[in-house]
Amino acid sequence: MQKVEKWKRYEMTLDGPVDGNPYTEVSLIAEFVNNGTKISVKGFYDGKGKYKVRYMPQKEGMWEVKTRSNVAELNEKTDIFECTEANKENHGPVVVSGKTHFSYADGKGYIPFGTTAYAWTVQPENIRQETLATLKQNKFNKIRMTVFPKNYSYNTEEPELYPYEGGPKKTADTFDFDDWMVSSEDIGFDFSRFIPEYFKNLERYIDELDNLGIEADLIIFHPYDHWGFARMGKKYNKLYIQYLVARLASFKNVWWSLANEYDLMDLCGQIRLDEWDSIGKLVQDEDPSGHLLSIHNWYDPPQHKDNTKNWYDYSKPWITHLSVQNDNVFNVPKWVSEYRKPVIIDECRYEGNIEFGWGDNTAKGMMDFFWRIILRGGGATHGETYIDKPNTKRPIWWAHGGKLYGDSQKRINYFKDILDKNGFSYIVAQATEGPHWELAAGSTPDLKKFIVYFGENQPEFEILDFLPKEKKYSAQLINAWDMTESKLNQKVTANEVTYLPRNEFNVLILTEDN
Amino acid sequence: MQKVEKWKRYEMTLDGPVDGNPYTEVSLIAEFVNNGTKISVKGFYDGKGKYKVRYMPQKEGMWEVKTRSNVAELNEKTDIFECTEANKENHGPVVVSGKTHFSYADGKGYIPFGTTAYAWTVQPENIRQETLATLKQNKFNKIRMTVFPKNYSYNTEEPELYPYEGGPKKTADTFDFDDWMVSSEDIGFDFSRFIPEYFKNLERYIDELDNLGIEADLIIFHPYDHWGFARMGKKYNKLYIQYLVARLASFKNVWWSLANEYDLMDLCGQIRLDEWDSIGKLVQDEDPSGHLLSIHNWYDPPQHKDNTKNWYDYSKPWITHLSVQNDNVFNVPKWVSEYRKPVIIDECRYEGNIEFGWGDNTAKGMMDFFWRIILRGGGATHGETYIDKPNTKRPIWWAHGGKLYGDSQKRINYFKDILDKNGFSYIVAQATEGPHWELAAGSTPDLKKFIVYFGENQPEFEILDFLPKEKKYSAQLINAWDMTESKLNQKVTANEVTYLPRNEFNVLILTEDN
Repeated sequence: MQKVEKWKRYEMTLDGPVDGNPYTEVSLIAEFVNNGTKISVKGFYDGKGKYKVRYMPQKEGMWEVKTRSNVAELNEKTDIFECTEANKENHGPVVVSGKTHFSYADGKGYIPFGTTAYAWTVQPENIRQETLATLKQNKFNKIRMTVFPKNYSYNTEEPELYPYEGGPKKTADTFDFDDWMVSSEDIGFDFSRFIPEYFKNLERYIDELDNLGIEADLIIFHPYDHWGFARMGKKYNKLYIQYLVARLASFKNVWWSLANEYDLMDLCGQIRLDEWDSIGKLVQDEDPSGHLLSIHNWYDPPQHKDNTKNWYDYSKPWITHLSVQNDNVFNVPKWVSEYRKPVIIDECRYEGNIEFGWGDNTAKGMMDFFWRIILRGGGATHGETYIDKPNTKRPIWWAHGGKLYGDSQKRINYFKDILDKNGFSYIVAQATEGPHWELAAGSTPDLKKFIVYFGENQPEFEILDFLPKEKKYSAQLINAWDMTESKLNQKVTANEVTYLPRNEFNVLILTEDN
Repeated sequence: MQKVEKWKRYEMTLDGPVDGNPYTEVSLIAEFVNNGTKISVKGFYDGKGKYKVRYMPQKEGMWEVKTRSNVAELNEKTDIFECTEANKENHGPVVVSGKTHFSYADGKGYIPFGTTAYAWTVQPENIRQETLATLKQNKFNKIRMTVFPKNYSYNTEEPELYPYEGGPKKTADTFDFDDWMVSSEDIGFDFSRFIPEYFKNLERYIDELDNLGIEADLIIFHPYDHWGFARMGKKYNKLYIQYLVARLASFKNVWWSLANEYDLMDLCGQIRLDEWDSIGKLVQDEDPSGHLLSIHNWYDPPQHKDNTKNWYDYSKPWITHLSVQNDNVFNVPKWVSEYRKPVIIDECRYEGNIEFGWGDNTAKGMMDFFWRIILRGGGATHGETYIDKPNTKRPIWWAHGGKLYGDSQKRINYFKDILDKNGFSYIVAQATEGPHWELAAGSTPDLKKFIVYFGENQPEFEILDFLPKEKKYSAQLINAWDMTESKLNQKVTANEVTYLPRNEFNVLILTEDN
């Protein structure tokens, strides 16, 4: 009898037919039963006559499994397994907690410190290993990554393996925006036949990420495509989602991101705006484990700031959290309170030196976003876009993974350490109204700890009138950029003047005196 | 016979009654006639039995003047004067040119490089002299300043002289926001009786500014008041405007700013939002010289960015240009094209070290605003708020004038020199749409010169696809902060990659090759 640790993966493998089209002609569903709990889980064809059903049990105890299929070999197969207590390192999947923030399923705090390496799992093996080594050296706890390969500026190499059989008969030689517009018919992929090895490769790295304590924010569709994967049509989009969710819903660190820049997909004639609602509901229906689910926008460069919410209707019930591209991060607390859902700023301008406004931020700018977003109660995502020179072939973190060359990640690690050391399981945004738009402040829920960040401003004194009255705080003074720490030689209160050095990036860590 | 240079001041002085109330009981109007042109100008009582009529002639030649009054001594007085050609240094008042930008009346270009010293004319004499010396050392060509004294944080000293007789019987000892709310009745000023010396002092300094080539952007009302000048009621507001305009419309460098933070005045129960339209029309009607006329908002700190236009309806016909508080300066070209009027960002966060978000900007931040606003076709205004320590008595530039202690003004001067040296009479914003929100770019109207500013970003190359195709430009590379200049060793075109050093504050000055 299999023993499966809580939130880890149960897998049943069955032999079945190889003829016809096993992806479309064979149905396989298993019922998982534990006491009163009964859950239906779809299986999938894994190639070479093997069919699988996977499930992530969330309740300890004995589970019975029984299959149903339109194929006799796969029908009424049964199994029993025991779900055992979670190991101490295993905190379960990340879930929404208290409506507006996250935690692990076991209650441990989780604040999103993300990074971005869209197509890292389809790069050459040595780069994949470099990516994992880089992630191990840093403290990111989420990575945005695509299921499909990517075709975009600086990212024009073909992958070694494709997700579908039959293609490509032709693809564009170099990236060209117009390629995204071409019909998929001539490229020759058969969207009814997956290549299981493509998905096994992806799964291998999702498990590697889980070993590192990193959530895989998995982008299901994206517009950067010249293979036709972005324009398969409703029928094959559905088949793809069913296959993907059947394979991956049992991975505890998976998050579903329906699309990157879904509105750009509409513009390119790939997936229409009105299709996402049914795609979102389908993912939700197919996923027996209720993973986090969102969708990510494109249309909010600064010229559109007049209307900061050029994004999907995040109030829809199948959406668990906001995953937005926006650099107007002052508004995070407002969005949190408006939607009553957690907010992650998944794009806010990457550290780099390229010609695009979204990829030429300084290290200071990238770091600044993290402090301002996270202290205001949101989650933040990093990216890096350094190149040696135009058309270089060196891997760029944001697209390929590899190494980090920047100066922001060290400060982001430092910030995360501060939160961990000071016991912040999540942040309650403070000073969100009124005159304090020069600073970002957050506290623990019990108001015993505050962190106040002054950013690229240089006040030499402040009256922190948002602190609880009649409390006194001991203060540590930090410089977020220099990563220097000193004790402030005064107690901090709501009424008295707090003196600071005339520097950018001052931070106060306040601890209530007993 | 007086000779008056074009755009300078003609003044007629008459003896009249001192009994009763000369400010309310005596009417005095003069007709100014030159060929077909006939203009009515109101006179005013200047104290000690002297009545005056002033006018700024805008046409050369002989002018006849004839008065009308309800008082025999002032009625049917006549004069003749000759308006002579303007001196080379005298370019006339600043006017709107080509709908969306400014020029002097003689056609010379004018791009607003403003500063702010609200109550400088009511400070002690030595500080006023210091202010003039500071202005002389720098290149600002506009200053925002109030008619009335000011009561606000760091600005709580009483002036030596008041604009009205009778008061103050009491004022608050120190600044307190609530003081702005008190009724004016107990304070004892008689709003029907001006003190001419108060206005003569103001006039002296407006003339001094003109000698320095600086426009006086004169704020008629403001909320920072504990004397009742912000709550005189409609009748006395009207009397004040008539008196002020009669005295000052003949000063060629006067601009009218109806109010600073007019929306805060509504909030404080001083002047209601719906009163400004008639106040604006009154100023326009009373002013025979058609000076620039606007009104300035408060309500746009970043928390309100969702709605960037929390400001007055600038489409009203009596408003000549936008005078806004807003730091979302990317939108300047959009606002220019929407209103078809010039746009000045008169508040965008001052360089300083105080506890308010509007007054703790770095020198780099203040300088950055100038480049981004002006290259995008707007005018910009500086301010400085450095203090030694809380409650210091050292004059603070933004309130009192005095000295500048900051590091932005040198870079702002440098920027203005670059525009002057390169013959920019006004800026045509470039790259306002599309992907180039990382940079700010402006050109001369003939597209022979471009300036491209990369701000706090660090691209190492750019494709400047907004340049005219099939043109080649020679480039000077500048660092806006370091004020260093070098030649770029490549020609710049719309199609080829332009290489830059990985620095913040890169600027390219491009000159078309012949």
